[in-house]
Amino acid sequence: MNPGTIAPIPVPPVADGMEEFGFAPCTGGICAAAGIRAAGVHAGFRKDPARSDLALVVADAPCTCAATFTTNRFCAAPVQVSRPRAAAGVAQAIVLNSGNANAATGDEGVRTALASTEIVASVLGCDPEQVLVASTGVIGVPLPLAPYETGVPIAVSALASTPEAAHAAACAVMTTDTVSKEVSVEGTVPTGAEGAPVTVHVGGFVKGSGMIQPNMATMLCVLSTDAPLTAEAAHTALLAAVKTTFNHVTVDSDTSTNDSAFLLATGAAGGEEIGLGSDAFPAIAAAIHGVCEALARKIAADGEGATKLVTVDVVGAATVEDADTVAFSIANSPLTKTAIFGHDANWGRIAAAAGKCGVAFDQYACDIDLMGVPVLRAGLPVPMDEEDMLRRFEQPEIPIVISLGAGTACSRVWTCDLTHEYVTINGDYRT
Amino acid sequence: MNPGTIAPIPVPPVADGMEEFGFAPCTGGICAAAGIRAAGVHAGFRKDPARSDLALVVADAPCTCAATFTTNRFCAAPVQVSRPRAAAGVAQAIVLNSGNANAATGDEGVRTALASTEIVASVLGCDPEQVLVASTGVIGVPLPLAPYETGVPIAVSALASTPEAAHAAACAVMTTDTVSKEVSVEGTVPTGAEGAPVTVHVGGFVKGSGMIQPNMATMLCVLSTDAPLTAEAAHTALLAAVKTTFNHVTVDSDTSTNDSAFLLATGAAGGEEIGLGSDAFPAIAAAIHGVCEALARKIAADGEGATKLVTVDVVGAATVEDADTVAFSIANSPLTKTAIFGHDANWGRIAAAAGKCGVAFDQYACDIDLMGVPVLRAGLPVPMDEEDMLRRFEQPEIPIVISLGAGTACSRVWTCDLTHEYVTINGDYRT
Repeated sequence: MNPGTIAPIPVPPVADGMEEFGFAPCTGGICAAAGIRAAGVHAGFRKDPARSDLALVVADAPCTCAATFTTNRFCAAPVQVSRPRAAAGVAQAIVLNSGNANAATGDEGVRTALASTEIVASVLGCDPEQVLVASTGVIGVPLPLAPYETGVPIAVSALASTPEAAHAAACAVMTTDTVSKEVSVEGTVPTGAEGAPVTVHVGGFVKGSGMIQPNMATMLCVLSTDAPLTAEAAHTALLAAVKTTFNHVTVDSDTSTNDSAFLLATGAAGGEEIGLGSDAFPAIAAAIHGVCEALARKIAADGEGATKLVTVDVVGAATVEDADTVAFSIANSPLTKTAIFGHDANWGRIAAAAGKCGVAFDQYACDIDLMGVPVLRAGLPVPMDEEDMLRRFEQPEIPIVISLGAGTACSRVWTCDLTHEYVTINGDYRT
Repeated sequence: MNPGTIAPIPVPPVADGMEEFGFAPCTGGICAAAGIRAAGVHAGFRKDPARSDLALVVADAPCTCAATFTTNRFCAAPVQVSRPRAAAGVAQAIVLNSGNANAATGDEGVRTALASTEIVASVLGCDPEQVLVASTGVIGVPLPLAPYETGVPIAVSALASTPEAAHAAACAVMTTDTVSKEVSVEGTVPTGAEGAPVTVHVGGFVKGSGMIQPNMATMLCVLSTDAPLTAEAAHTALLAAVKTTFNHVTVDSDTSTNDSAFLLATGAAGGEEIGLGSDAFPAIAAAIHGVCEALARKIAADGEGATKLVTVDVVGAATVEDADTVAFSIANSPLTKTAIFGHDANWGRIAAAAGKCGVAFDQYACDIDLMGVPVLRAGLPVPMDEEDMLRRFEQPEIPIVISLGAGTACSRVWTCDLTHEYVTINGDYRT
């Protein structure tokens, strides 16, 4: 029997680089990157005039873009419009609304999404093909065009490159989110003349609190960087980051119809173009990964009704797929999540959740640590100090580590507890 | 657009036979079958002396048995003991306790499970190899043997073939169940001399309320029949029934470590032995299926904290696997389940749950009926009368039907809503 705690999960290679490459937090959110302006206003998608519902993020000129979208078969109209446009790798603006998802709205919904981008293009004076669109809110209700007609001119006149403008955009996409979610970092990469250092930024905001088990991206995420990325480099860095961050968050196992993540790379920091083979690429990719991970943790921590951020680490799996399956099985287990809400160190539910998902392992090779305390070794309980466990439950973050003893693969998933407030929020949402 | 409701799911062929074969409800529960006695007593697994915690079901002589068990990798000690014994096809007694699952208890737990069957065999005067054992309750706590030593003699002296004794056994295995769950049916099969009719019975009880997404069987189920089934016929009928009944119930997606379903066939009704090829087999199989379906519905209706029984029918799927995947995706969707709790006809969440699970279909070929009302046709909303929907939510059973327009396969899954009470029960369970 191993008396110590399980060795921690190795941080994904690309993620441990952000600090190593010298990136550190900075202010500015989505506007931290040079060449980006943002705004968030009330346009009328929501009835409450005090609540903003239209966000606009604009680059000073057409620039590199990358995006990923939901895999839900019921994909929303804005996803159908944005997906092919983003694939072109160039965009200038992203318009987002809250209060209505424009999903299950058929051809009329697609026409509205297209028309919204035409309004934005007309007011900004840019190509409608370079305007991307995203929506979040209730499903199956026609999205009116009028709020765009009145709201977009107001938003365009409010555009600014300030932290306040970035914050206004982050707030305008909130639905059941209780806090806005912004992150930005700053670092230098050797991409100037003769390898001179150039200061670059990566920033962004995200919204998401319920219907969250993203599969390609989280609910809605907008990232920007002033690094001069090629479209291929932007796409590769965004996909790699989303795969192990937003796609590893689950609040309630429900994959949205509208999940979208966008990255605009303005190049305004200057310096040489950064492609996949550039010396500066690993640093930028690490920064994008770091920003996505920080935003992903904010989603889990602000899950609907959540009181705890829960980190599930699976180590010792035979394959990464096995590790992912076990991690999600634990993270989506209502019994595990309600036990955490109840400050109940009921590791039996964690073991049962690991065992139920069809992944092969020997229960007598399995170890579990809960909040840093060994609770299961070789399939057998380790006596716990219940008072000590109760004290540990006072922390805002609850780590679960399970070792399957079946190999060397691992996975990390973020989730939250399941609370009365979740039931209240979702029992009353539409009414 | 189809203005009518979706054609109902065809009832599984074996299930529509119970009434057709003349089986009808009768009294007696597990004791409806001749040759079966039962008891339920307080043995001391629980502290509260007013709460029974030991159930015993005994055949008058060694008889045919069949059983199915959990697929959870963390399978409990009693499952490890009962699985090989049941495979022999002969048994005389089943001993069940509540209050402690004897799971994650290692070799000591297996020794306790073996010893419990030796105590039962000694008091009954039968072969320990013909005693099966099952446990339900908290995981990871050593199961004491003392309650068997004092409780089994009391239970044996209480054994009776009355409805009251059957009810006592059904009550002794309850955990968070709010009601006991018993069903029994009676019918005749042409298995006497020269095809003369013989009256046979199928009855049983089940327990299960949380940690319920059985995969092989429900939490704990004991069935009996006085029909003279061969071991092969008993096994085939039980497996066929469990597959589309208990294995299609989900309360919270958590598959237990202890799921077990047992069938004892005493043959005490008399008549010719019934094998797979007997004329009487389809009727008996239909009766076993009917009893399992009725018990499965009782589990879903009594799901932890449930206020509604929810029936999810998926039709028009390309394959049965697709139909099952979509049905479970909807039935396990926390957003769908909380909406039902909130009497919110939010079919968008049903559509999103269908779309998220990786099954291929065209959203514009998809129809949804909620509580008998068409709400989605060809992927587009059908206007609802919200007042009418609120009235329909007053019913105890909420039917959801979704047609994928991708083929002819179908599936039915039973679940319940997700309520505050579920969170309360599972946030406080161990404390």
